[in-house]
Amino acid sequence: MIIIATVKVIEGPTITSTDPSSIQCRKHQLTCIDGEGYIERIVDESDDDFESVRQHAKQTDQLLTLRPDEYLLPGFIDLHVHAPQWPNAGVALDRPLNEWLDTYTFPLESKYQDVDFAKPVYDDLVKQLLANGTTTVLYFGTTHNPANLELAKACIRHNQRGFVGKVAMDNPDQTPEYYRDASASQAVEDTETFIKQMIELNKTTSLKQTPVITPRFVPSCTPESLKGLGELAWKYDLPVQSHCSESDWENGYALEHYHKRDAEVLDEFGLLTDKSVMAHGTLLNQTDLNRFKDRGVAIAHCPISNVYFGNAVLPVSKLLKQKVKVGLGTDISGGYSPSLYQNIRQAVMSSRMLHDGVNSELDPAQRGTANDPISAKNGFYLATVGGAESLHLRTGQIKPGYLADLQVVQAPMPSFNEETMDQIFEKIIYNASKDDVKQVFVQGRFAK
Amino acid sequence: MIIIATVKVIEGPTITSTDPSSIQCRKHQLTCIDGEGYIERIVDESDDDFESVRQHAKQTDQLLTLRPDEYLLPGFIDLHVHAPQWPNAGVALDRPLNEWLDTYTFPLESKYQDVDFAKPVYDDLVKQLLANGTTTVLYFGTTHNPANLELAKACIRHNQRGFVGKVAMDNPDQTPEYYRDASASQAVEDTETFIKQMIELNKTTSLKQTPVITPRFVPSCTPESLKGLGELAWKYDLPVQSHCSESDWENGYALEHYHKRDAEVLDEFGLLTDKSVMAHGTLLNQTDLNRFKDRGVAIAHCPISNVYFGNAVLPVSKLLKQKVKVGLGTDISGGYSPSLYQNIRQAVMSSRMLHDGVNSELDPAQRGTANDPISAKNGFYLATVGGAESLHLRTGQIKPGYLADLQVVQAPMPSFNEETMDQIFEKIIYNASKDDVKQVFVQGRFAK
Ligand SMILES: [Zn+2]
Ligand SMILES: [Zn+2]
Repeated sequence: MIIIATVKVIEGPTITSTDPSSIQCRKHQLTCIDGEGYIERIVDESDDDFESVRQHAKQTDQLLTLRPDEYLLPGFIDLHVHAPQWPNAGVALDRPLNEWLDTYTFPLESKYQDVDFAKPVYDDLVKQLLANGTTTVLYFGTTHNPANLELAKACIRHNQRGFVGKVAMDNPDQTPEYYRDASASQAVEDTETFIKQMIELNKTTSLKQTPVITPRFVPSCTPESLKGLGELAWKYDLPVQSHCSESDWENGYALEHYHKRDAEVLDEFGLLTDKSVMAHGTLLNQTDLNRFKDRGVAIAHCPISNVYFGNAVLPVSKLLKQKVKVGLGTDISGGYSPSLYQNIRQAVMSSRMLHDGVNSELDPAQRGTANDPISAKNGFYLATVGGAESLHLRTGQIKPGYLADLQVVQAPMPSFNEETMDQIFEKIIYNASKDDVKQVFVQGRFAK
Repeated sequence: MIIIATVKVIEGPTITSTDPSSIQCRKHQLTCIDGEGYIERIVDESDDDFESVRQHAKQTDQLLTLRPDEYLLPGFIDLHVHAPQWPNAGVALDRPLNEWLDTYTFPLESKYQDVDFAKPVYDDLVKQLLANGTTTVLYFGTTHNPANLELAKACIRHNQRGFVGKVAMDNPDQTPEYYRDASASQAVEDTETFIKQMIELNKTTSLKQTPVITPRFVPSCTPESLKGLGELAWKYDLPVQSHCSESDWENGYALEHYHKRDAEVLDEFGLLTDKSVMAHGTLLNQTDLNRFKDRGVAIAHCPISNVYFGNAVLPVSKLLKQKVKVGLGTDISGGYSPSLYQNIRQAVMSSRMLHDGVNSELDPAQRGTANDPISAKNGFYLATVGGAESLHLRTGQIKPGYLADLQVVQAPMPSFNEETMDQIFEKIIYNASKDDVKQVFVQGRFAK
């Protein structure tokens, strides 16, 4: 029996995450996609009707057969991107955070008041992220709604699932005069306006874009704006994104100004919900992690960025054991790379360095910590399932009923030996670059 | 006046390292290459005869004008590659060293007894490294001379400056029966045979390939083979390569078996000379570093590999301050990537993690170390000048009298702003991938 609703069938090997430590690799299967953009059925070579489904797809021109060295993977989910910072990716990373913000980042972000400046940047960024295999992105925009809307439109135009936040930052002590919300009430009002604009925009598209409540971080907001934003998150039942305990400085700010932990401040303003995604968290303590677990808050782990601004390594294996939600982010431009492949690698490497320690002058017993290193499979889980759970999306796996957000990846090197699927997987994770990502589908539709 | 000897003129912006912390960027110049493959002259836009040199080159069909987003950089020098391990790049990196060696590495290396297995691997590896902008490579081969010769021939065929070592490993306690030299004298004799074969091979080419004395490392050799190899290094005045104090285990082996530091053992056998390149050195102490400095020994810093097998971070800024020679290596397949760009990035990131520390449970003051982080410019220096000095080559800089080992790199992202040359440089270092390396020249001849 051929299911009528199928509109596309991708034939080839698939690799998908099943739990934090495991992948499922199938050598030859048909991934059938329906007209709504969901994976409707998966037919394995061993199934009776494999040949008839394949023939029917071929005759109806629905069959896409991968090349022998290509593999179908779930698209990646990037939980932390500062869209306006794209022009600075790779720039000035060796500057201290305050100089990086004041000299490079805030002046750049303020330019997005001009929509004509925003348009080509957002257009290019969305295309670049898709080209790297990233099908869903949680974006920080700027304070400017016209530019934020352009970002959402770029997502629609290029077929990416965007979550877009109008950045709120109204604290005159921690933001420059040329780039801040005029007041707490203005910050909240503009956020609500943006939510309504996004609701309107979504009437024009089947690829829904989601507005996100986005206090930049505790230091850059007043208690009033944090309170108002928490109320909006509740009123519209929307995702929340911010930064939490990213660095010694940020972690210290809440302690100094509120005499509370950073997480506690956010929580008291209603900003820690099971739809919240907090970037970095390198300095969260066990009390904070318990709070995250209780509230269902997810952490956007940005391993490249953390090397420059995080002051420590997030103990990912501990979070996975404690079942705290965690996914991956590039944190452009605190991180230099638009590739989640590169961030998976760095997540693995940073976790090894946290385990082994770094200082050769110490004895091995003193040098390291008890945190287990994570594996390439763990990293792949974060970039797919972890991100999907953080955003409450049925995606990130190749599985019936899941969104057909997919990437076709070419093995980045020839093979000279018989290779196991595990070895092929590792080679892809460790060496795939943008040019190895050959095709990308979002909600079943072509996006690269 | 036009210099007659010029055979190629590359027109465009250039970026070259001048000292460990500085680069020189020129927006528009003519890099004139002579028939021997050396940079003969550099004509800047501001020079009187710029236009006449340019016109002459154009008329004689010698002019190569870069595209507006392309930059001319020195080719990279990779100081540590295990050529036979190329099929395993990215594989099994989360295994302990002994399992990685016994289950993955030694069985693979033993296959090179079959030249037909070696040929396609070495062919592909040389091409891949060139494609990544690497113009000179210091290779470990295997114990098998016919395969090692194939590697040198692949370098000649594809236009890469190779330094190739026949690996010596004769200690029955630390090597598997199926893959070791039959005896110490056999190891030394085969090494001398390989030297003579390379001398013969070099009569057929203007791109000289250099044989290298290559004890695998102290544990895998007997004192007799180490002694014989030290004598060969002296007799033929050849480069030496090995590993030194890579990990707690290796560092401990010499202490246990010789009651001496790893470096001291190598030194006593005459294997630490000013033509020696020692991989890793993550656990070298100050006494070892003084010895390296005295002898003129270079360190091949392999930052990606060290994350997996090094147990600590090499303090590169300290080495640069102490003027210990240091360059970069990919250490395929202890490192997963054939790209020195990726290794520059990891060198920078590892140095930051050594500086900041990794364990969030410690106070900032206890967490970090006094080692300064290195910059992208430092990393670029290691991959070019540092490598050239380690191998006593006049290359690694765009400068008259230097070998024309060059790469043409496309800016990996569009620019949306006025950008300084420093910013363009940083973006290239942080985001260039193989596909951004558009052309490669070795000794003036086309290699990609
Ligand atoms: Zn951020
Ligand atoms: Zn090695």
